[in-house]
Amino acid sequence: MKGLLAWWKSLCDGSRILRFVDVNLRGIGQVMFQDNPLSGLLFFIAIGWGSFAAGMPQVAIGGVVALLAGTLTAQWLRVDAAGLAAGLYGYNAYLVGLALGTFLAVSPLFWIYVAFGGAVSVVATLGTANVFKTWGVAALTAPFVLTTWLLLLATYAFSAIEGSGLSMSAEITPLDPAMANPLAFGDFVQGVLKSISQVFLKASILAALLLLAGLAVNSPAAAVFAVGGAIVAVITGHFLGAESDLITGGLMGFSPVLTAIAIGAVFYKPSPRVALYALVGTVFTVIAQGAMNVALAPFGIPTLTAPFVLVSWLFLLPRQHFDQGARS
Amino acid sequence: MKGLLAWWKSLCDGSRILRFVDVNLRGIGQVMFQDNPLSGLLFFIAIGWGSFAAGMPQVAIGGVVALLAGTLTAQWLRVDAAGLAAGLYGYNAYLVGLALGTFLAVSPLFWIYVAFGGAVSVVATLGTANVFKTWGVAALTAPFVLTTWLLLLATYAFSAIEGSGLSMSAEITPLDPAMANPLAFGDFVQGVLKSISQVFLKASILAALLLLAGLAVNSPAAAVFAVGGAIVAVITGHFLGAESDLITGGLMGFSPVLTAIAIGAVFYKPSPRVALYALVGTVFTVIAQGAMNVALAPFGIPTLTAPFVLVSWLFLLPRQHFDQGARS
Amino acid sequence: MKGLLAWWKSLCDGSRILRFVDVNLRGIGQVMFQDNPLSGLLFFIAIGWGSFAAGMPQVAIGGVVALLAGTLTAQWLRVDAAGLAAGLYGYNAYLVGLALGTFLAVSPLFWIYVAFGGAVSVVATLGTANVFKTWGVAALTAPFVLTTWLLLLATYAFSAIEGSGLSMSAEITPLDPAMANPLAFGDFVQGVLKSISQVFLKASILAALLLLAGLAVNSPAAAVFAVGGAIVAVITGHFLGAESDLITGGLMGFSPVLTAIAIGAVFYKPSPRVALYALVGTVFTVIAQGAMNVALAPFGIPTLTAPFVLVSWLFLLPRQHFDQGARS
Repeated sequence: MKGLLAWWKSLCDGSRILRFVDVNLRGIGQVMFQDNPLSGLLFFIAIGWGSFAAGMPQVAIGGVVALLAGTLTAQWLRVDAAGLAAGLYGYNAYLVGLALGTFLAVSPLFWIYVAFGGAVSVVATLGTANVFKTWGVAALTAPFVLTTWLLLLATYAFSAIEGSGLSMSAEITPLDPAMANPLAFGDFVQGVLKSISQVFLKASILAALLLLAGLAVNSPAAAVFAVGGAIVAVITGHFLGAESDLITGGLMGFSPVLTAIAIGAVFYKPSPRVALYALVGTVFTVIAQGAMNVALAPFGIPTLTAPFVLVSWLFLLPRQHFDQGARS
Repeated sequence: MKGLLAWWKSLCDGSRILRFVDVNLRGIGQVMFQDNPLSGLLFFIAIGWGSFAAGMPQVAIGGVVALLAGTLTAQWLRVDAAGLAAGLYGYNAYLVGLALGTFLAVSPLFWIYVAFGGAVSVVATLGTANVFKTWGVAALTAPFVLTTWLLLLATYAFSAIEGSGLSMSAEITPLDPAMANPLAFGDFVQGVLKSISQVFLKASILAALLLLAGLAVNSPAAAVFAVGGAIVAVITGHFLGAESDLITGGLMGFSPVLTAIAIGAVFYKPSPRVALYALVGTVFTVIAQGAMNVALAPFGIPTLTAPFVLVSWLFLLPRQHFDQGARS
Repeated sequence: MKGLLAWWKSLCDGSRILRFVDVNLRGIGQVMFQDNPLSGLLFFIAIGWGSFAAGMPQVAIGGVVALLAGTLTAQWLRVDAAGLAAGLYGYNAYLVGLALGTFLAVSPLFWIYVAFGGAVSVVATLGTANVFKTWGVAALTAPFVLTTWLLLLATYAFSAIEGSGLSMSAEITPLDPAMANPLAFGDFVQGVLKSISQVFLKASILAALLLLAGLAVNSPAAAVFAVGGAIVAVITGHFLGAESDLITGGLMGFSPVLTAIAIGAVFYKPSPRVALYALVGTVFTVIAQGAMNVALAPFGIPTLTAPFVLVSWLFLLPRQHFDQGARS
């Protein structure tokens, strides 16, 4: 693996085009916090597969269009070179493209909307990062969530952009208990894997396995926490009586998966204490996912990864030092 | 009074268990900003009385369960010792327990939910405090509000947790003027006292008197501003034509009471200028209470103390120095 | 022009009353970022004309009442002298008065509500400015938006204050394409000019021309960006298929106009790169306007200038240095 990456690095050193490819692959990798072009490539293949297999090529292509727009915008804005090279200005753009491809109907204007969204997500990333570095915390996917929420909400006001994949505005009512069924083993496995693939808005078991491979090549701990987070999310969801279809489809689990990786393996050094902290955060992300599903129902837009962002900020802002005796 | 507290302190010095009790009592006291175990004890008795008298023991017990979970979590997280000893990691947890006990149906899972909410409120407290100390302002009850809103909203998505005490989602319509009646003297007194007891989610005159006693033993000024804030809130509410039942039940006044104490007697040194500033803040909290009642109606959750948090932050963030000639 | 202002300055030096007038005129000028009493006077005349011509004198008078209340409050709070003299504590108050006059029914209590709102807006300005100066960014009209949203939402809860001009709470549905008509030249011109006058909540072509004059006397660049922003907004709105009546009435364009001035001519030094950045921000403000129209429909309150505030913060927080080679 190391040899492969060294070979790729030597290729990139000699080619502006390959360096551009490298930056964009790392951008895809950063959706799950991996600053590694191979992770990005595996994620990219996973999303491509999930997207074409579902008959929605516009998702994978939308992701690429937004990502390219975002990277070019970041270069035009002369953002910090290290962050750019690490893909930190790409992951939000890529997610904007995937989300718009998932929820909007394709048209010529759609592609402009996608590229524009990718470009604006870079500005949002710069702004959010500036604010949150005050407290030593990362922007996470907040720029993606904010930008996409506005772009999706606006489709209700604009007749030239159609939100074909958006659920209509709905009144808030308690869940019918008949929608929460006992947990069969097959549902459990599906729920766990699709919780991972839904991080990229896909319900695909093969995509999930490719995503896990992409995590494992760069950070085995991240892969472990991804699976662990997904298992916790599915169990918690069933335990609380969430809608079975949502759990099995991975829709209660993608934000908890990100929380588990972020708290457990990225922003803190893994340890038993950190794992317990990540567990609490992951469970609370399931609750936040339920809460936001409810809160956004009247607006007819999806939560995206907002539950992950909210809970991870909440659990990172305390700036706990788990490797020390006391909080400084 | 001083002798009593000195005696208690000497007892605590010799016993880990009593020190633990002391921390928790101070946590209850901090709901109304009082770092005093006797205040906490009187508040605790007030809430116990109000809760059992209303046939809802789960409120008082829920408060204790969440408080204990919160204090243990704070110890596990090794929070700063001074803040812990002053009860600063307890009041949000206690309020989470009272609120869940008020709005949710009892079940085995309910108790786990309560303990979990108390634990998470400590993380939320650490995070919120870290952010707001940037501007020299306290977290107030924001961690309670945020944690509880998520826990309550989520009950609409989870069939195993039932929101028995939540009002259903409602459309926003102007108040029928017939709901706003002239102010009789008995209603006035009730409204004032229940505005104080509703800080702890109880509509009880006896509880209000015990709460005032708890304030008075530690800070007579706080007791004065509590009563003053309640009077201002009831008068403002009637003047603006708010729903009479809400006013008389103390539901327009609990946030203004907290604003009045916070601005008038806790975070600024009492003076005529500060009192006028507190008056404006208290009146604006009544307006914010009306606004948030409206804004949250579609979501089927209560405002909790959000109007207090919002307006008090607004009035504390200017960092006015009322004891000096000019703003530095 | 310079002679006129020098003469006025010499008059003010000799008279407390004229200095008070000067501060208030500058406060009106600051609605469009102009620290110039002549700009303020022209804006004042524009609003007076628009208000009386529309048979709604309460708008212009409400603006004055709130502005006076705000300026007196700022003096009482002993705010920083330079900011006060530059009108920075006046523009939010003035806008509060215009907005309450536009959306509420006149009554004796209305005038108290207006004055109170103007006073509170100063506290909100101090607090918001304190928070955002952490990142070197201005409060913009956020204090106006926050204060007015609370004051308007509350009218649904209070029977003594009537929201005569508020649209009722509405469910979110996609726009009927029949509402988006092709763009005729007359509509285009109207849309552009009314986008400018709607910054002050007026749909008046004459007011727009007076406002442009007020901009031009102090900052020709601001006038250019105002017109440019309005043109961009109208074209973008039609291109995206927004409701024609909203575009022609200036209601899709007032926030973009402010974004264009803020990014293009006030907070960055004008340059081709800045102009392109402002263009992206202006287009995104149109999208944000559509999104917020949708998001606020269930609450029955208008967006006010929130789309401008949100997008301008997003585009100012990156702290880009367009005049340098790289971002420091």
